[in-house]
Amino acid sequence: MSVTLPRGFRAAAGRCGIKASGKPDLALIVSDQPAKIAAVFTTNAVQGEPVIVGRRHVSKGAGRAIVCNAGIANVATGPTGQQHAIDMCRAVAEAIDCQPHAVLPASTGVIGQRLPIEKILTGIEMLAGQLARGPKIDHAVARAILTTDLKAKQAHRRVRIGRKTVHLGAVAKGSGMIAPNMATMLVFITTDVAISRPLLHRALRQAANADASFNRITVDSDTSTSDTVAILANGQAGNPMIRRKDSPDYRRFAEALADLSCDLAYQIIADGEGATRVIRIEVTGAASADDAHQAARSVADSPLVKTAVHGADPNWGRLAMAVGKSSAKVDPERLVISIGRIRVFNRGRPTRFDAEAASDQMQADPVVLRVNLGLGAGQCAVLTCDLSRQYIAINADYHT
Amino acid sequence: MSVTLPRGFRAAAGRCGIKASGKPDLALIVSDQPAKIAAVFTTNAVQGEPVIVGRRHVSKGAGRAIVCNAGIANVATGPTGQQHAIDMCRAVAEAIDCQPHAVLPASTGVIGQRLPIEKILTGIEMLAGQLARGPKIDHAVARAILTTDLKAKQAHRRVRIGRKTVHLGAVAKGSGMIAPNMATMLVFITTDVAISRPLLHRALRQAANADASFNRITVDSDTSTSDTVAILANGQAGNPMIRRKDSPDYRRFAEALADLSCDLAYQIIADGEGATRVIRIEVTGAASADDAHQAARSVADSPLVKTAVHGADPNWGRLAMAVGKSSAKVDPERLVISIGRIRVFNRGRPTRFDAEAASDQMQADPVVLRVNLGLGAGQCAVLTCDLSRQYIAINADYHT
Repeated sequence: MSVTLPRGFRAAAGRCGIKASGKPDLALIVSDQPAKIAAVFTTNAVQGEPVIVGRRHVSKGAGRAIVCNAGIANVATGPTGQQHAIDMCRAVAEAIDCQPHAVLPASTGVIGQRLPIEKILTGIEMLAGQLARGPKIDHAVARAILTTDLKAKQAHRRVRIGRKTVHLGAVAKGSGMIAPNMATMLVFITTDVAISRPLLHRALRQAANADASFNRITVDSDTSTSDTVAILANGQAGNPMIRRKDSPDYRRFAEALADLSCDLAYQIIADGEGATRVIRIEVTGAASADDAHQAARSVADSPLVKTAVHGADPNWGRLAMAVGKSSAKVDPERLVISIGRIRVFNRGRPTRFDAEAASDQMQADPVVLRVNLGLGAGQCAVLTCDLSRQYIAINADYHT
Repeated sequence: MSVTLPRGFRAAAGRCGIKASGKPDLALIVSDQPAKIAAVFTTNAVQGEPVIVGRRHVSKGAGRAIVCNAGIANVATGPTGQQHAIDMCRAVAEAIDCQPHAVLPASTGVIGQRLPIEKILTGIEMLAGQLARGPKIDHAVARAILTTDLKAKQAHRRVRIGRKTVHLGAVAKGSGMIAPNMATMLVFITTDVAISRPLLHRALRQAANADASFNRITVDSDTSTSDTVAILANGQAGNPMIRRKDSPDYRRFAEALADLSCDLAYQIIADGEGATRVIRIEVTGAASADDAHQAARSVADSPLVKTAVHGADPNWGRLAMAVGKSSAKVDPERLVISIGRIRVFNRGRPTRFDAEAASDQMQADPVVLRVNLGLGAGQCAVLTCDLSRQYIAINADYHT
């Protein structure tokens, strides 16, 4: 269950004819009541037209629906492409009777092609007549937003706030062009919590930047032009409106949202292009939080580390290299590196470790690589996956 | 011909038993007369013991010899490893009668293992008795410093300075852990030019940072702990000592050195792990030179760009993505991207280009990717190679 678990949300998904494979390629998520909306978008300087339009719409703060197509990303398509994103919102607005700016558009797939807009508009009209609730619908929505993903990604949480049960549900897609700061990733979250808009946005930003969450994962260090993580909150849970960031209610909601986000981020990495293993890099003892993040990313993005994990080779030299090349402050004489529970490098020297046991740790799920810089209190956890021949096959044999 | 082309240099190479394969693994380069020495080293915070010792020796400014072993990198080996690097220098010093600090040590290969120092010391004594000149010796030296490289890398230049012919010769190794700022790369350059030490160092730094030279290449974005580019200049050409940086003599020497460096950098990339194609990324129109460098590196390090080139797929969307995710200032409406001579993206939109012709351009040698940011005068050229299944095979199947 996911996006229609929270009260007052319905959804629909189907095929409108964008994907040549004939697979589902259009999804619509609707809140029956006006909701608050918040979103974070890609940091890439080249941005998809739906991102440009979506940013504008989200800035108004009120949301009713999210519409998403897969197969074509509507990026670098100019004024025509931008009009297409607006047209998608208008079609939804007409069908469910709201303002066009209350609709968030999203597209994912090939860059540079124009959307077959007539097919999509027809599809939207059809889906608007089929809005419903339940696990089957949720799964259909999760499937309809996929591109190179192999698995549908869903998650949900329940949390007690002010004696009411608050629900969160979400679908996600993402498999390649995944790097910190919103990589080709679409995440749509629904919740029935009652919360002020600034706090909704704050909770979303915190959740995206949490350890091992959306801004702390990388498949290939490449950052997409279309990344969008959006949340609709319609207040139907009936909890007392959350208005203070230091209240226990806010903390409880923010924690549930971060937990949900990490669940989806993990699913994205587990389904990373060519991935056979998830790798969790935990850096502690950094001079600052930013240093910890830089060191963890440097390890996570190192092809030599990722191929070593693929080969289950406890090659601590590559780990030390990857930490050392980062912009973080590093003193080899204080550096400690562990593979799972096994310490392999201790203050400037390798330890005498059991290579076979360390190789076993590199086949754990996830593989945990721990780096203690021994310099301060900064820490960070980043998720990535191993680098396999299959990654090359997917990306070299794929033709535009 | 390479290191023994300049007057007054001799060399020797052979096998001392470090490499299990029985391939050559030890090389010695000697200037018969005292020479000036300059070097640039890895920027990785984790540095090999020979780098630590070498830095100290080079700081004295006087050099007579370079000794290098392959197979074991002598990194993270502590005081014992550092003593081994010193012992190698002492053995050379005794054999050719000079101060130990006039010898530059270098090691490349596996990280974290101890050198079989007795074998190496015996090998040095043997090689010191076999010092000679000529193309065969040069080729033997180039081969003895290789690790995963498939090809020996040599280059030489002749340049007229002050009515004398000045010679430069060099050997290089490097195939993986190659990224800007001295990636696993060893380069040893000899020259008979007469030049002041500060100018020798200046010319070397300029040469390493020139377009498409040592600090502008990347195989895998990973930076080694052992990189060393060193030059010995013994003055035997008899040219009037070069003492002024604004003199035509200095300019001519610096140009020849940069040209030689780019030649070797190209050879390193062409032999990059798993490489089937060299890719030259030329960024122009950047707001600054640093922006140009950042944008070019971002394209060069993008696995999605590298796999697209491997598949000869003119996927301009990945190029636009890679430019956009860099830290450089980018305005899509001013951005122009060309594959070879074919413009594929023009100020925010794809062009209508001949996909087959563009695919042909992606099989050129080198593949040239041109990015004009349209914002200023900053420019930079970076070399990289494509990313193939073979890269994964080399690095996942290789076991420590």
